[in-house]
Amino acid sequence: MTSPSRYPFPDLNALPEDLRTKILEVQDKAGFIPNVFLALARRPAEWRAFFAYHDALMTPETVGRISQLTKGDREMIVTATSAANQCLYCVVAHGALLRIYEKKPLVADQVAVNHRKADISPRQRAMLDFAMKVCLASHEVDDSDFAALHAHGFTDEDAWDIAAITAFFGMSNRLASFSGMLPNPEFYLLGRVPKAPAGG
Amino acid sequence: MTSPSRYPFPDLNALPEDLRTKILEVQDKAGFIPNVFLALARRPAEWRAFFAYHDALMTPETVGRISQLTKGDREMIVTATSAANQCLYCVVAHGALLRIYEKKPLVADQVAVNHRKADISPRQRAMLDFAMKVCLASHEVDDSDFAALHAHGFTDEDAWDIAAITAFFGMSNRLASFSGMLPNPEFYLLGRVPKAPAGG
Amino acid sequence: MTSPSRYPFPDLNALPEDLRTKILEVQDKAGFIPNVFLALARRPAEWRAFFAYHDALMTPETVGRISQLTKGDREMIVTATSAANQCLYCVVAHGALLRIYEKKPLVADQVAVNHRKADISPRQRAMLDFAMKVCLASHEVDDSDFAALHAHGFTDEDAWDIAAITAFFGMSNRLASFSGMLPNPEFYLLGRVPKAPAGG
Amino acid sequence: MTSPSRYPFPDLNALPEDLRTKILEVQDKAGFIPNVFLALARRPAEWRAFFAYHDALMTPETVGRISQLTKGDREMIVTATSAANQCLYCVVAHGALLRIYEKKPLVADQVAVNHRKADISPRQRAMLDFAMKVCLASHEVDDSDFAALHAHGFTDEDAWDIAAITAFFGMSNRLASFSGMLPNPEFYLLGRVPKAPAGG
Amino acid sequence: MTSPSRYPFPDLNALPEDLRTKILEVQDKAGFIPNVFLALARRPAEWRAFFAYHDALMTPETVGRISQLTKGDREMIVTATSAANQCLYCVVAHGALLRIYEKKPLVADQVAVNHRKADISPRQRAMLDFAMKVCLASHEVDDSDFAALHAHGFTDEDAWDIAAITAFFGMSNRLASFSGMLPNPEFYLLGRVPKAPAGG
Amino acid sequence: MTSPSRYPFPDLNALPEDLRTKILEVQDKAGFIPNVFLALARRPAEWRAFFAYHDALMTPETVGRISQLTKGDREMIVTATSAANQCLYCVVAHGALLRIYEKKPLVADQVAVNHRKADISPRQRAMLDFAMKVCLASHEVDDSDFAALHAHGFTDEDAWDIAAITAFFGMSNRLASFSGMLPNPEFYLLGRVPKAPAGG
Repeated sequence: MTSPSRYPFPDLNALPEDLRTKILEVQDKAGFIPNVFLALARRPAEWRAFFAYHDALMTPETVGRISQLTKGDREMIVTATSAANQCLYCVVAHGALLRIYEKKPLVADQVAVNHRKADISPRQRAMLDFAMKVCLASHEVDDSDFAALHAHGFTDEDAWDIAAITAFFGMSNRLASFSGMLPNPEFYLLGRVPKAPAGG
Repeated sequence: MTSPSRYPFPDLNALPEDLRTKILEVQDKAGFIPNVFLALARRPAEWRAFFAYHDALMTPETVGRISQLTKGDREMIVTATSAANQCLYCVVAHGALLRIYEKKPLVADQVAVNHRKADISPRQRAMLDFAMKVCLASHEVDDSDFAALHAHGFTDEDAWDIAAITAFFGMSNRLASFSGMLPNPEFYLLGRVPKAPAGG
Repeated sequence: MTSPSRYPFPDLNALPEDLRTKILEVQDKAGFIPNVFLALARRPAEWRAFFAYHDALMTPETVGRISQLTKGDREMIVTATSAANQCLYCVVAHGALLRIYEKKPLVADQVAVNHRKADISPRQRAMLDFAMKVCLASHEVDDSDFAALHAHGFTDEDAWDIAAITAFFGMSNRLASFSGMLPNPEFYLLGRVPKAPAGG
Repeated sequence: MTSPSRYPFPDLNALPEDLRTKILEVQDKAGFIPNVFLALARRPAEWRAFFAYHDALMTPETVGRISQLTKGDREMIVTATSAANQCLYCVVAHGALLRIYEKKPLVADQVAVNHRKADISPRQRAMLDFAMKVCLASHEVDDSDFAALHAHGFTDEDAWDIAAITAFFGMSNRLASFSGMLPNPEFYLLGRVPKAPAGG
Repeated sequence: MTSPSRYPFPDLNALPEDLRTKILEVQDKAGFIPNVFLALARRPAEWRAFFAYHDALMTPETVGRISQLTKGDREMIVTATSAANQCLYCVVAHGALLRIYEKKPLVADQVAVNHRKADISPRQRAMLDFAMKVCLASHEVDDSDFAALHAHGFTDEDAWDIAAITAFFGMSNRLASFSGMLPNPEFYLLGRVPKAPAGG
Repeated sequence: MTSPSRYPFPDLNALPEDLRTKILEVQDKAGFIPNVFLALARRPAEWRAFFAYHDALMTPETVGRISQLTKGDREMIVTATSAANQCLYCVVAHGALLRIYEKKPLVADQVAVNHRKADISPRQRAMLDFAMKVCLASHEVDDSDFAALHAHGFTDEDAWDIAAITAFFGMSNRLASFSGMLPNPEFYLLGRVPKAPAGG
């Protein structure tokens, strides 16, 4: 078994109180601790900024902001971006969330391999096209890219959401890849198998 | 639901006998008809050549040849090649076979996203490095690439296997992508969930 | 003199009867044995599938199919594809056929260096643009690429021909390049010099 | 005069207290407000996370961490990364800081155009080579890249610094470019002209 | 201090009379000898052809030709081309001339980092787009590229100017980079600081 | 028949005396006027500089310089460079000269398609590898590239020859491609057919 990172994970009990609390909450909810929480925890200040930024973009309601993007839209952007950057951790972890939020067990693999072939809406396709431009050629983004978004009902505020999520996970992808961070095995199957109904 | 191909599938009953027989055999064994069998069947001569070539490379024992590559090795090459070519059909269909033959539910996603991070042997890593050179820059293949294979115990005969599988599926990837061939939903989950033991 | 392949050619007399017969026929007609026939013959099952596929695409009348592409069109696609993949064998061998079928001694060099500057029809230019998209970015092929073909009178059936020839020779290019297969010297001059009229 | 961003800057007086205080401090120290502080302020939660992350990496002493990288090293990484991403704001703003910290009026232009030709130490050259690998091909980072750093006395902790700065500013570059954020004119000349001695 | 070239500079006094005279004139006017004049002088015949070509394109009035491009336009093309080729000498030296001729202290850095974000006219933007096509993909230049120029009032004669300057400096960039030619320190600050008025 | 250039050729009789004389000399020797002589003649000052530079590099003996590169070496560099830049005029015209000087009817096609497969000496292979680095990534040329040349007996003076020829024809390629300059039909066959012995 490959180690989940080049950098040893810190002891959960030795972490600052705020990190430990948040991590235990996540564990409670998910049933396991996603490796990114431990991998980054060796540098608490960076950990705090990373997750504050993450939450501001991915759960904007927690910072009092309303976004027109759905949870599924957001995870779709992350999955496409992470595939473009060939980041194993993020494709697997966020692909799982994408399946769950979109309630589509197949969509994450489709978006990761080739978003042009994915079973998504034309609006989502335009969203991913913009994300890929920001991801791969941000210096060439111009008015025509915004116009393509507007044609699908996106506002400039939505464009900011798409671009910021793409940019943030471009950072996350580089951190995960350089440090050899690997996804927890639990992520791979999440959202693929319909849950049996209660009492089933 | 997106149609599984730009080109309509032929009626199974209208196909030449040899195609129909082989397709029904596959359906019997797999429980469903992989779309590639129907998508290519509209041109029987090409269908026959395609699957004859496929079998010569992927099940060499059926043509009386022994290969040092395992079934898992071969599907791993197909998965890596198809990911490099962003072919949705082949990543999903052959990723399923890879999981099954290697008995590793996680390996296909790892190889598809970034084979450098996959939980595979150094020998398999060298095999995929050679495959990627053939896939992406065959005009630059030289003695040093063969030497890297030899260092892991591969012979020139094995190199032929690796290169030919990579080249064949590079063709297959282009056929699937240009024609909009989509994978059957059944493939996505295959090999991900351990089968319950009999009587379990 | 460089050897014409990393892999030794098999003895013609030791080959299975069907291979030997076909190869002697080719020799009869061409006056020499193109190296690809010997280079691939070391693996008869692959040889048979390769040439069956080749013939189904390049001489469709032999399998009872009518194609709207001319022989010259088909060799033009092969030459452009092989140049894009920097495959010496195929550019030289199929460039010769292109010159012969199109009866244009200069066209193969033009297509191989830069098809955009070649003295070909706008219809052929569109055909090669589609082939280059399949060759270099098949994952990005979409409706607009088919529309560009339709504008020149090509049908979806023709698109299949173009794409399949491009895909098949992308495989052939990789096989030739990885194995160091070199073109027979005879190919270089074929079709360049007008034949003297009988009795001349 | 081009507007300094596609997104209007918020009114400084309408900003949350903590943002306003920090921005006024920066203005006090620099003599002007760098546009990034106003451009991002329209989303206070993202602003806070961005600058918290920035400070954790760029002024680690403010979060109680010691880094072996000098201030000049860090700005050199930012300048090279931003040039690779063709981000006008960051090349100009951080190039200015690089000149000031390194006390070398020419170094920023050198690093921005081609770091291989810059008048920097072999250790800094190795640092930038690692940064460029993380910036442009993070999925290919492997042990040999760490070994190249170690050969110049860098530790894995330093590697984290280099990679994290590269990744963070890759995000920053994308935010600035997509939103059309332009550098303040004041940055262009900073650090280029030696200050006259006091009483001069 | 890095040496300004891998190839030693010849002794000014040992140079042929015509080279020496021209070089001393340049020194007189500029206050220093730009390194390119000494770096190329080791081969007088190449030196003469290089500067004859340079002058025919960059000061066409000296060969009796009128160009619709301004001096600033021409230096802008050189700066963008040299940045695309990552040539330190030419970006720094010609960026200085660009600042001076355009009387815009900021424009050279903008054009060098990302010409799409530079504070230039739409006509100049079209000019640089054409130059970048010639610089990076000349084999793909076609009628549509000329049409884009015509839409901004450029003639085919102007297109020749733009393309020839781009092509000439593509040569110059390769000569400077391969030989390790470095810019004189004097260039870096030229045109950045407004001159004090006489008697100031 | 496509016109041999977007820009009309000037009338030979209306050209300045020195151009006319040189062009008639070339015609006398070659039996036809290579299109480049007419295509560039519309701007006599650029014409003079172009051919002065050309001669200084390609026939150094005419400017009193001895080069260790043979005529065949030089044309081989031009052919490889022009193929990398996909310049139809230069591949065809200089490929002809390469065949003639090397007395090898096949070598030009080999070098143009993939110099790694060409029947050339290891010394020539190293020469072309250096040329390709200058052609495609001059900003990355470093000591190791010179060392690779030295290992084959090349001096730094030879390196200058290789780089300067590559750079000059990179310019020539861009001029020919942007202007649609096409090769004279006569070039295509030159050097391909052995001349009949006198009295034969």
